Amino acid sequence: MMKKVAVVLSGCGVYDGSEIYESVLTLLAIEQGGARYQCMAPNIEQMHVIDHRNGEVMADQQRNVLTEAARLARGEIIDLATANPADYDALIIPGGFGAAKNLSDFAVAGAAAKVNPDLLAFTQAIHASGKPVGLICIAPAMTPLLFGEGATCTIGNDQETAAAIEAMGGQHQDCDCSDIVFDEKFNLVTTPAYMLAGSISEAASGINKLVNKVLQLC
Amino acid sequence: MMKKVAVVLSGCGVYDGSEIYESVLTLLAIEQGGARYQCMAPNIEQMHVIDHRNGEVMADQQRNVLTEAARLARGEIIDLATANPADYDALIIPGGFGAAKNLSDFAVAGAAAKVNPDLLAFTQAIHASGKPVGLICIAPAMTPLLFGEGATCTIGNDQETAAAIEAMGGQHQDCDCSDIVFDEKFNLVTTPAYMLAGSISEAASGINKLVNKVLQLC
Repeated sequence: MMKKVAVVLSGCGVYDGSEIYESVLTLLAIEQGGARYQCMAPNIEQMHVIDHRNGEVMADQQRNVLTEAARLARGEIIDLATANPADYDALIIPGGFGAAKNLSDFAVAGAAAKVNPDLLAFTQAIHASGKPVGLICIAPAMTPLLFGEGATCTIGNDQETAAAIEAMGGQHQDCDCSDIVFDEKFNLVTTPAYMLAGSISEAASGINKLVNKVLQLC
Repeated sequence: MMKKVAVVLSGCGVYDGSEIYESVLTLLAIEQGGARYQCMAPNIEQMHVIDHRNGEVMADQQRNVLTEAARLARGEIIDLATANPADYDALIIPGGFGAAKNLSDFAVAGAAAKVNPDLLAFTQAIHASGKPVGLICIAPAMTPLLFGEGATCTIGNDQETAAAIEAMGGQHQDCDCSDIVFDEKFNLVTTPAYMLAGSISEAASGINKLVNKVLQLC
């Protein structure tokens, strides 16, 4: 039976959704690792829409996370609220600001952040049944919100973000973008990707390691 | 001196812009082939916006090709109209309906299609200076518009599309998604990618061959 990985997306584009390269590299690595995936996203409005040419908010635009994430999945996507954790062997969440703006409000609330309730319930169910979770780039900032106190993760070496993670009860470990941090107790794998990567190949090196580790664990 | 490839995008999403997996796989293959790239797109309105969950037109939405393509380039993109062909060693155009809706109107006009004038001028300048061009997926439908009569290309094995290409003066050759068609006279490489691919890895096999061939030729 082929392993099946749930991939939670948060839109489509680094500044207001899922980081596109990280998401595609994750899907490619899952497939090349002999497993399959199902993309899913919450059916909610994006925090905002960013013009990716200049980084400014497009005040006249409003977009839905699930609808935009469908672009990254060629339409093959389901509403996170309807996903059954029992159907999956693992969970991976790519980065991009969408993880800190749509899946949680870490980008604005910092250490006071809350996480999307459907994502929380799904992740806790995956974790409670002993299945591994992989978080990429800025997504590991949600670690204490998803796993409670004591779980170790990495977002690279940004000291402000690391301090916010520790203020929420997480443990941060510096890590190069070609490497991963594995918390054996929490069955959690994290990698910095574009928190540090300067190119697609650099991001790919850590993401491939993360996906391979997650697939080994399930 | 590192080779530099111009990658022309047409938005961000298979149904109204550039196919995301094809675009990312192209950029990754260029980088892994030891070359670098510059993404560019025309600064024009998209033909329309498609809801990628259900394939329907979102009539209340209007999006700009360059602004949306910037998502696929993490903001590192230039206006095709300002691109200098002399700065590049090759040109590659990924697929997605954007090639047939925004870069040309092949999706609606078929054999009577016209191509974006800035893309035409850029491609003809690249071609006239002996540099190779790679077209992926549905983008090869523009072959007769970009190269004039007689150039051989592939869009896989869709007979209706192949007939339209031949009606415009092109030559079509059936091809598997793991392979490429090379027209030596026109220095043109094409591959079907998601015209036939059933998965990212299948698309990657042909795209990697196309990119490697283009890099060999320049």
